[in-house]
Amino acid sequence: MTNNEVHPIVWTGECITLLDQTLLPSEETYVDIQTVDALVDAISRLVVRGAPALGAVGAYGVALAMVQGEREDWSADELHENILRIRNARPTAVNLAWGVDRVLPLVESGLAAVVADADAVSAEDAAANRAMGRIGADWIEANVERRPLRLLTHCNTGTLATTYWGTALGVIRELHERGLVELVYADETRPLLQGARLTAWELDRAGIAHVVQSDGAAASTILRGLVDVALIGADRIAANGDSANKIGSVSVALACKDAGVPFLVVAPVSTVDLATENGDDIHIELRSGEEVTTLAGIRVAPANTQGFNPAFDVTPARLISAIITEKTAIEVAQGESPKSKL
Amino acid sequence: MTNNEVHPIVWTGECITLLDQTLLPSEETYVDIQTVDALVDAISRLVVRGAPALGAVGAYGVALAMVQGEREDWSADELHENILRIRNARPTAVNLAWGVDRVLPLVESGLAAVVADADAVSAEDAAANRAMGRIGADWIEANVERRPLRLLTHCNTGTLATTYWGTALGVIRELHERGLVELVYADETRPLLQGARLTAWELDRAGIAHVVQSDGAAASTILRGLVDVALIGADRIAANGDSANKIGSVSVALACKDAGVPFLVVAPVSTVDLATENGDDIHIELRSGEEVTTLAGIRVAPANTQGFNPAFDVTPARLISAIITEKTAIEVAQGESPKSKL
Repeated sequence: MTNNEVHPIVWTGECITLLDQTLLPSEETYVDIQTVDALVDAISRLVVRGAPALGAVGAYGVALAMVQGEREDWSADELHENILRIRNARPTAVNLAWGVDRVLPLVESGLAAVVADADAVSAEDAAANRAMGRIGADWIEANVERRPLRLLTHCNTGTLATTYWGTALGVIRELHERGLVELVYADETRPLLQGARLTAWELDRAGIAHVVQSDGAAASTILRGLVDVALIGADRIAANGDSANKIGSVSVALACKDAGVPFLVVAPVSTVDLATENGDDIHIELRSGEEVTTLAGIRVAPANTQGFNPAFDVTPARLISAIITEKTAIEVAQGESPKSKL
Repeated sequence: MTNNEVHPIVWTGECITLLDQTLLPSEETYVDIQTVDALVDAISRLVVRGAPALGAVGAYGVALAMVQGEREDWSADELHENILRIRNARPTAVNLAWGVDRVLPLVESGLAAVVADADAVSAEDAAANRAMGRIGADWIEANVERRPLRLLTHCNTGTLATTYWGTALGVIRELHERGLVELVYADETRPLLQGARLTAWELDRAGIAHVVQSDGAAASTILRGLVDVALIGADRIAANGDSANKIGSVSVALACKDAGVPFLVVAPVSTVDLATENGDDIHIELRSGEEVTTLAGIRVAPANTQGFNPAFDVTPARLISAIITEKTAIEVAQGESPKSKL
């Protein structure tokens, strides 16, 4: 634990305190979430986001609903209904439902049991992230020669997207602790700028040298020989290793393949979906075009122009060097797959 | 000529009227440039931009300096000094200096001769663009099967970047006139959003169906089979065909190569620099990092975070299907090069 540590999700005993990620990096504001209404609103507005983070929020959300139900004298049905509202606040976020479902059987055992299990969700995620950090850093030390390392990442996969430390950004933190990082290129990650706003904020607090670049710059930065390894997270990984992640990821992977630069996907085992055979079966969420045609509330495209805004893309396994999980490194480039290895 | 035609650069007889491209698409404002000071400022602030457009601006700029010199009784030295200021207003824009240099020998012959030659620069550019449009459209009709066509372009290469019609966007206009265009994906082109602001504005006025997407979306749009051909412009083309263009271009090319989608570079012969052997010798302009770390004047990255902002990237010839010029299509994928063909 360092002085600069951030705690974006904290259970206080009767409410959830969230770091409002929509205000970063200009303001570091914490909001006390006291009601299910406020929690559903916070999740929808992306006050808190990131798959592993939403797992913890789902679990603590059940505790929050119990406290509010006690205070407002809800019936069992009312309590259940409100828990379901949390579970469905972002339908595409699998981890949110997973976090709710995990603690749900404990509701009958009382608040303390639910909170204890939510704490466990949080602690397990943190431990998994630290393990991914070590396994990923070991992989890079073994497979990449240049010292110090110049890294490239896309979107935000840090403490803000998890409960602590991060996935791909956790590997970068571990490499930094080992004294191996020269510079991190953080893609700004349009349209919502999670890279410029959140990743840069975490790197700055951690004292890790970094620059932000437009997403279109990533390929040329890689082709110009300025990057030794690229690391991203994942939202869903198919059995064959095809990996869905924030839009823009696959162009990083294509450039790495062309330049012979290792490309790593870092994600917990829970992100692997063995029931999904390959990337063709991964549904790509299409978000509002206005996220592209407006910027900071200002319209940048003509009034008649529509935005095309797929939120994710799929990187085929053939472009991935290895998938780093908390259990093992899956050597995709050497023929391993989640199906064969997990 | 259609009703929706735009004239971004007009010589009125005593001043240059420019469409202020910094205000598009929300405002269509024309400014009368009456002095060399105002012209240098307009060029620096990108009121007018685009390589071929700057060629015409350079030529008319000499006329403007002559009119102002006459009015303010400049010496021959003062006139020459002011013409040089125009020539150097954007040091990296070869065409600006080229336009100035072309009409310079005519200064002694008087204003009418200079204006006549500036008009010729403008007319020649327009004619070259129409020729590129036809040659490019013919190439696509011969080499791409699907009808109607789904196109992808990056940055702005239209009337706003030239004097009329455009280069890559000129090919798109020609295809539209032939009734062959289903949809154009316009990359927004961070950091300055020429795609979202300018290309979308031109496509909208021309009645061409289009959507704007973030630059990070281009690769996945191509890999998902949504694009039949991608077309970009160029700022400089080396003898071997390596082509420098707006940052983000090479990731479009990489995705096209991976997906087997034709990738065309459309530019006049004057863009080819046979003295530059290959892309390694092309200097990449590094612009202010603030263009990345701020958006519409608002800081999006943390205060300590620097932006990395190369303005261009180089697409290697091996990723290019053909280079379309006003003289011929150079079949790069079949072993031709500017050196062998021009």
